[in-house]
Amino acid sequence: METEQFRQFGKTAIDIIADYYINIRERDVLPSVLPEDFIRLMPENAPESPEKWQELLEDFQKKVIPAITHWHSPQFHSYFPVGVSLASIVGSLLCSGLGIKGSTWISSPACTELEVVVVSWLAKMLGLPEYFQNTAAGPGGGVIQGSASESTLVCLLAAKHRMLREMKASNKEIDEDRIKTKFVIYTSDQSNSSVEKSGVLGSMITRLLKTDNNGQLRGETLKKAFENDKSKGLIPCYVVASYGTTGTCAFDPIDEIGPICREEGVWLHIDAAYAGTAFVCPEYRHLMKGIEYVDSFVFNPHKWMLVNYDCSVLYVKDCFDLIKTFDVKGDIDVNDEKETVFPQYRYWQIPCSRRFRALKLWIVLKIYGASGVRDLVRTQVNLANHFASLVRGDSRLVIEPEPSMTVVCFRLRKGDFLTEKLLEYLVNQKKIFMVAAIFRNHYVIRMVICSQFTTKDDVDRSWNTIQDGVNYVLSHSHRFNHRKSLLTNRRLSLDIERV
Amino acid sequence: METEQFRQFGKTAIDIIADYYINIRERDVLPSVLPEDFIRLMPENAPESPEKWQELLEDFQKKVIPAITHWHSPQFHSYFPVGVSLASIVGSLLCSGLGIKGSTWISSPACTELEVVVVSWLAKMLGLPEYFQNTAAGPGGGVIQGSASESTLVCLLAAKHRMLREMKASNKEIDEDRIKTKFVIYTSDQSNSSVEKSGVLGSMITRLLKTDNNGQLRGETLKKAFENDKSKGLIPCYVVASYGTTGTCAFDPIDEIGPICREEGVWLHIDAAYAGTAFVCPEYRHLMKGIEYVDSFVFNPHKWMLVNYDCSVLYVKDCFDLIKTFDVKGDIDVNDEKETVFPQYRYWQIPCSRRFRALKLWIVLKIYGASGVRDLVRTQVNLANHFASLVRGDSRLVIEPEPSMTVVCFRLRKGDFLTEKLLEYLVNQKKIFMVAAIFRNHYVIRMVICSQFTTKDDVDRSWNTIQDGVNYVLSHSHRFNHRKSLLTNRRLSLDIERV
Repeated sequence: METEQFRQFGKTAIDIIADYYINIRERDVLPSVLPEDFIRLMPENAPESPEKWQELLEDFQKKVIPAITHWHSPQFHSYFPVGVSLASIVGSLLCSGLGIKGSTWISSPACTELEVVVVSWLAKMLGLPEYFQNTAAGPGGGVIQGSASESTLVCLLAAKHRMLREMKASNKEIDEDRIKTKFVIYTSDQSNSSVEKSGVLGSMITRLLKTDNNGQLRGETLKKAFENDKSKGLIPCYVVASYGTTGTCAFDPIDEIGPICREEGVWLHIDAAYAGTAFVCPEYRHLMKGIEYVDSFVFNPHKWMLVNYDCSVLYVKDCFDLIKTFDVKGDIDVNDEKETVFPQYRYWQIPCSRRFRALKLWIVLKIYGASGVRDLVRTQVNLANHFASLVRGDSRLVIEPEPSMTVVCFRLRKGDFLTEKLLEYLVNQKKIFMVAAIFRNHYVIRMVICSQFTTKDDVDRSWNTIQDGVNYVLSHSHRFNHRKSLLTNRRLSLDIERV
Repeated sequence: METEQFRQFGKTAIDIIADYYINIRERDVLPSVLPEDFIRLMPENAPESPEKWQELLEDFQKKVIPAITHWHSPQFHSYFPVGVSLASIVGSLLCSGLGIKGSTWISSPACTELEVVVVSWLAKMLGLPEYFQNTAAGPGGGVIQGSASESTLVCLLAAKHRMLREMKASNKEIDEDRIKTKFVIYTSDQSNSSVEKSGVLGSMITRLLKTDNNGQLRGETLKKAFENDKSKGLIPCYVVASYGTTGTCAFDPIDEIGPICREEGVWLHIDAAYAGTAFVCPEYRHLMKGIEYVDSFVFNPHKWMLVNYDCSVLYVKDCFDLIKTFDVKGDIDVNDEKETVFPQYRYWQIPCSRRFRALKLWIVLKIYGASGVRDLVRTQVNLANHFASLVRGDSRLVIEPEPSMTVVCFRLRKGDFLTEKLLEYLVNQKKIFMVAAIFRNHYVIRMVICSQFTTKDDVDRSWNTIQDGVNYVLSHSHRFNHRKSLLTNRRLSLDIERV
């Protein structure tokens, strides 16, 4: 491809993206394709000869766009938001445009140093403990990972390694192989499924502890679990608490959990993937009471901070816990005080290489400013509250639990079965997309403000769509077969978030 | 950011990228910054208020660009190439522009289905066994991962899980915890460091086996290692062979290794991260003799196939080996014959979510065509051969081992010490960037054709730079202190690839 062609191709793509967002309300949030529809449109083999970029863009518009789900439609209320912003799109563009890879400092100095700068900025913006800032004294610091799943696994491996080192230091005779099989990870039954997955992948015994009526993991519960396991000869090693559970966005009380972990020398990790961004607003910081007890904290700017997927920021209290685990060959001097300022980030993570993700983060922070991020959080929480007030005005519905951040869960008073049918009906209509959760044994519909383009009018529109669904389901309730799904597409199976 | 601003910002960014490549030969390949130089240019805190995009781009040009290493300069001859192409840059742009996330099919049908299409195309383009094609009969298929490191770790975890299942099936009484500590991974002393890392992360005993004079892992060596370990009660579980080792691009003989693995029921994985792309040319396929024995194969289109980083394609013979490992909750029916056509890719990998990486792969394959990829491989191998012929014409230098693909290793006849000084001198001059390897106990300089923009003139220019360095070092040899590095920048430490 010649440079002049690239200029035309690239600029046309920019216009396509701009138009896509301008017109996003004209599309159904869910696509009208059936399984294999898209595959059937594609040839069986890669083209032998080059195609023109104009033809490619036509294919893109006619075949790809109709087969995607529109995550940034204001009627997308599923899962958690995935970050996108017009500035971040250009950030990603510049990153892929440079085409560099970071591993050592010399492989691209700015790739390492800009990351140090922006993760330190973020630690301050969120009001996290100073020891998490790379540029402060001490061995703590931040690093960009691909996902909270990865971050949780990285810390699990480090926690295991640290516990083993400590045990070996106090008793050189221990049977390392045997000890490793006794380590236990604890998390709540509301935590993200990635926590359970990391336990399995890291070969640790996994305990999903029961939460209280608010979906929180209480200190008392954790303490009992520790005691119970210790009495069996097992070893508490790693605790993953949540700031914003996946189902209902509950916050675990770290001021209760923290002291218990510290007493046992257990690594305490916080998964704040979605809700962490809210701490840019001081009014939410009371929710992180006890944060000084944690060993690591992860949040995803690619969720609620306008940064394009992927960009997950992990903070650790002591980076050498990571390095001692991932620097297999012992390249790094573990006494090097400069390690947090010139990190060899390849030893803070699973892969060897890294993209220049700091660039898009930097661009987003500059183009929106800290004030822009705070505005987004407050605006979206207000929109969620507006939606909650609409639901409260309808006596056929009940909100449960109380809304948290932009997550509002509700159900029909007439029972779980009809609530499930309501969600099936709505999803099948494709005008709105939500997923379910189970809360206190009830099936609830989870409505999340996701798109940053959402306005009050959009929320009203979503509410009207939901009300039409309620009317339909309540007036046809006698007709529903208990087994038969209202979904006409068999691959449209709905996720149910663990609560 | 308003849409009209985005159009201007994005189009200006496109022009910056276009100009960057047009002018890439005017810059030194390595930046002239010292550690902390870049950090000092940055404010201590994120901006409170939004900045203008024009100011941001000025910062980008004045501060970021001078602090990066130019991976696509034709004088960049380090490591392996990292893919970039003008078409792929637009591919990444469209991907981040849509801002979607794939996990289940409904989270974006095209995200799953286009991936199925392109990984099947690639399997055919490379001439891989039919059982690796998602669209063929059977449980085999391909999936895009973030890196070969991740792919190798994913297969290690799956190999461990499979072996454990098989042992439990034949003997329900086994002590699972004890058994797990006996599993061994084998690889050659020339494999990429990520293989060793995956062994450590996956808690497997790791054997780095000695290679022969050509840097290959021989069947005989592997067989003896198996026997030796089995006599100690250990259990061979996972073998990682290389198609293109990191140091000298050697190919392990799978027709020797394969039958030994099969006899023991050991998982055989091929790391073809860089060199895998070469199989698009039929004349290289003799190097994959024995491929029908492998359980999994990974290659990175983001290395030599014009696709922007990251995009690593992993093929497995049986996707249920992955699913049984990663589907912690057992969501997938392991008898579902459709799993390779509608994969729930979240259970084929470590993280839960996925980017729409298939899109850039699709765009690259359409814009360049299979013929374009073959042309690139052949052109670059010819350039490497041209360089080798220049080195052969200089009696002060020796090539060792024989060049493979685009990797040419050479050293000064006058000894390793001066070869090391030569590399230090060249890197310090910043006109050319190469790294070292150790081959048969000799320090060799590793020259790789990396940039897709490289022409014969560029190779001649690199050769002239090297000759100037040789002249300098040989005429100043008496002055060099054995200890003192010629590098003026202490963080400019040079990687030495394991060979």
